[in-house]
Amino acid sequence: MAQTPYKQLEQEWKRLHAFRGAMSLLRWDAAVMMPRGSASVRGEQLAALETEHHVLLTAPRVSRLLDRAQAASAQLEDWQVANLREMRRQRDHAIATPVSLISRLAKASSQAEVRWLEARQSGKFESFAPHLEEVVNLVRDKADLLGQALNLASYDALLDEFSPGITSGDIDAVFKGLTRRLPSLIRETIAHQDQRPALPLVGRFGVSRQKALCADVMKSLGFPFERGRLDESAHAFTEGVPGDVRVTVRFDVNDPLSGLLGALHETGHAMYDLGVPAKFADQPVGRDRGMALEESQSLLLEMIIGRSQPFLRFLQPLLAKHLGVSGDEWSGQNLYAHLTRVKRSAIRVDADEMTYPLHVLVRYELEKQLLSGALAVRSLPDAWNTMMSQRLGVKPASDIDGCLQDVHWAVGSFGYFPSYAVGYVIAAQLYEALRHATPDLDAQLARGDFGGLFGWLRDNVYSWGASIAPHELIRNATGKPLGTAAAVRYLEGKYLESSGRDSAAA
Amino acid sequence: MAQTPYKQLEQEWKRLHAFRGAMSLLRWDAAVMMPRGSASVRGEQLAALETEHHVLLTAPRVSRLLDRAQAASAQLEDWQVANLREMRRQRDHAIATPVSLISRLAKASSQAEVRWLEARQSGKFESFAPHLEEVVNLVRDKADLLGQALNLASYDALLDEFSPGITSGDIDAVFKGLTRRLPSLIRETIAHQDQRPALPLVGRFGVSRQKALCADVMKSLGFPFERGRLDESAHAFTEGVPGDVRVTVRFDVNDPLSGLLGALHETGHAMYDLGVPAKFADQPVGRDRGMALEESQSLLLEMIIGRSQPFLRFLQPLLAKHLGVSGDEWSGQNLYAHLTRVKRSAIRVDADEMTYPLHVLVRYELEKQLLSGALAVRSLPDAWNTMMSQRLGVKPASDIDGCLQDVHWAVGSFGYFPSYAVGYVIAAQLYEALRHATPDLDAQLARGDFGGLFGWLRDNVYSWGASIAPHELIRNATGKPLGTAAAVRYLEGKYLESSGRDSAAA
Repeated sequence: MAQTPYKQLEQEWKRLHAFRGAMSLLRWDAAVMMPRGSASVRGEQLAALETEHHVLLTAPRVSRLLDRAQAASAQLEDWQVANLREMRRQRDHAIATPVSLISRLAKASSQAEVRWLEARQSGKFESFAPHLEEVVNLVRDKADLLGQALNLASYDALLDEFSPGITSGDIDAVFKGLTRRLPSLIRETIAHQDQRPALPLVGRFGVSRQKALCADVMKSLGFPFERGRLDESAHAFTEGVPGDVRVTVRFDVNDPLSGLLGALHETGHAMYDLGVPAKFADQPVGRDRGMALEESQSLLLEMIIGRSQPFLRFLQPLLAKHLGVSGDEWSGQNLYAHLTRVKRSAIRVDADEMTYPLHVLVRYELEKQLLSGALAVRSLPDAWNTMMSQRLGVKPASDIDGCLQDVHWAVGSFGYFPSYAVGYVIAAQLYEALRHATPDLDAQLARGDFGGLFGWLRDNVYSWGASIAPHELIRNATGKPLGTAAAVRYLEGKYLESSGRDSAAA
Repeated sequence: MAQTPYKQLEQEWKRLHAFRGAMSLLRWDAAVMMPRGSASVRGEQLAALETEHHVLLTAPRVSRLLDRAQAASAQLEDWQVANLREMRRQRDHAIATPVSLISRLAKASSQAEVRWLEARQSGKFESFAPHLEEVVNLVRDKADLLGQALNLASYDALLDEFSPGITSGDIDAVFKGLTRRLPSLIRETIAHQDQRPALPLVGRFGVSRQKALCADVMKSLGFPFERGRLDESAHAFTEGVPGDVRVTVRFDVNDPLSGLLGALHETGHAMYDLGVPAKFADQPVGRDRGMALEESQSLLLEMIIGRSQPFLRFLQPLLAKHLGVSGDEWSGQNLYAHLTRVKRSAIRVDADEMTYPLHVLVRYELEKQLLSGALAVRSLPDAWNTMMSQRLGVKPASDIDGCLQDVHWAVGSFGYFPSYAVGYVIAAQLYEALRHATPDLDAQLARGDFGGLFGWLRDNVYSWGASIAPHELIRNATGKPLGTAAAVRYLEGKYLESSGRDSAAA
């Protein structure tokens, strides 16, 4: 029996999924395992696969099948209709960009990533600048072409690729809502917390012990090590496909909390990626619903759960076991004081949850300027420092702590950063609904039972895959439209109510 | 200016080379890094890339370009003519096999490899057998189709894929030459060596120390770690492309020499792969000249150089440095006695150089029977044990030391094993010519100077790539046709002349 057009499309996308998985592994390897001198070879490999993926996705046969499947869509199940829509969306994006541009961008960003790694060591922005400039130029070309094809402003076209359904209007509204309250809230919190200083956490903690701690925490959270890995890399990230998810973390021997928070962040991504229903795991509808929702999952774990008193109660014996620490400075109370300490600092991934959105705002504004051409790449370090001083009141000690701290731009991810701020707001909104639905959540977390948390996320987030729009998903899950009210309520409650509503930590 | 048909073909093969590199990395990762539960996902990825590689290689456009380039070949350089011939050879092989078969074989062997790894732990051949049977059936189909297309017997068609230009006639002649002398030579050597027993080497040596030793030796040999890696795996192998070559070794904590010999073997492969001229490294002519020559390079290092007194002189301080060993049992003389100890044993990769070809003969005879259907997969363990007893006079303690010891059949590499025996014979023939051309070779090796060795190999082997036939390469390098005389002379000289011609070891 001949397959229906829709079924043939499923086969096509199964193949595309395999290509995506292979590319993901090549990227993971490049950052974790690859010898330094092999970057150009890897660049050729990624470009060849990226190009072929593009050719397969934009083949005339696929267009014909999409039209025929659309005509017969009355016979499809709901998720298949959504799948067909996502297929078309991917095709529309791909067809707007010529294959030669895709290939050049893949090669340029593969090389730029290596130069970024080098510049992070040397601190020499100049040696990285020409590579970043090439990437910016190529991304700008791509954004213009995408914008024309999708009838969107160039920057919005990039956003649409990362977080379909989230517009720059949404992002501006989020930043407006946050900046209305955050600066004063930061001032109040800092004044407040200065009355109860935290004991310093001193000591050196080897990478292998920290890695074992993170692995143990991840196991408790339910990360399936038989279908995933945890490794060290220069920049924490998650790569892979549902059957093989790879988390990497950057460890700091002087600060075990930093690696742990990185592991929580990436585990949030990984659990989402692993949580899509198996029946459409290799289809477009079986992916996350965009990067804002991805980051809501990572930030929920890193910023909200991971910095809660019940979680610290669960964590304490594991800290003692793996790091051999004890004493007042490692008490739940003191750890909580550290993890909720609001500080104007230079590094996004080390930021507290309150200043974090402002770090993102700096990047959002700068990347729009880079793409529009209003800001030249060579002027980025100065512009960065100026903006950090305006928004956060800090000046980075060097470019390593400044515009070289993130990999995103090097690998061509412009339009990604806003996902962190929108994601944080979504995370707070989901958390409010989750607490409402799970009255004994704190007790569960404190005893290391994460079933309630991940069960709720599975029902309300993971299981939907990409079958509905993000605004719909948020409304279904929380009963409210996307907004900053829950985030502000959450931050005020946590940081201004001096005693804290939960007192699970000893 | 439009590119010539030939230049367009070079572009096509550059892309195919990138695909091959990506597939090689996926295989390396599967054996070294991948979580156990991800095998089926990886199988899908490899199958998708393998299929696409096949589609690209067999595209009508490639056929047309090959014909047009052939017609204009008078304008090409010699290496380009050879390159065109190799392109056509690859295309002819690919076009003989339908893409569905390639895809099924890739999937089946990816799964079978994982089951083989499990069976090597459990010793349960039965759980691996159905997977091997599927692979055998698919390889048989492939061999039949290839044979029809190339007008060769089925088994010869597989040989032609691994070692073009080496026929089963050549292999039979090699085994005839070797089996005429080896059995008696083994008897004489064993009688001879029983008069000078070696002191036992005892101790436990951690994997990290052994790995550091191997890395140090590889660095001395010239292995470029900025474009390559050394890792541990269940079965030693080399994967990669000239810009990123990855060696893996199996370490035995009770026997550091075994890991070291494995590292030498794989480094022999790696140096060949890395040694092709850069100008055609991404072209068909820039590959090795088949697996028999590949194994000549690995066995030259493992069996001949690595078991010579001058090499042991170089090695001794490194053994002391990394393993902390000293005393009479670690003297050059005693190590030499160990490494040249001829013993009827069960494991090929642990075999001495004299019994080694007989291990290969067992596999050669069995794989022909498996493919012809004369031997059923379920009867393999018995047939293996019977054959081992006939040819080598040993009975493996279990299937782990028997028919489960090699990965080759699991991954579909039928027709590969003979390369080891032919390769050994070529190695001995090259070594005779190398010694003749380099009178102070022993002194060079003893002081850790491997420039003369690898310089000669570069000039006589590496630099040719796949531009000439193996028989021609051997005649050019040694002045003689392929034959077993040099191997027999070498073995007789080394094992029967009691004092040994070189006495560099202390």
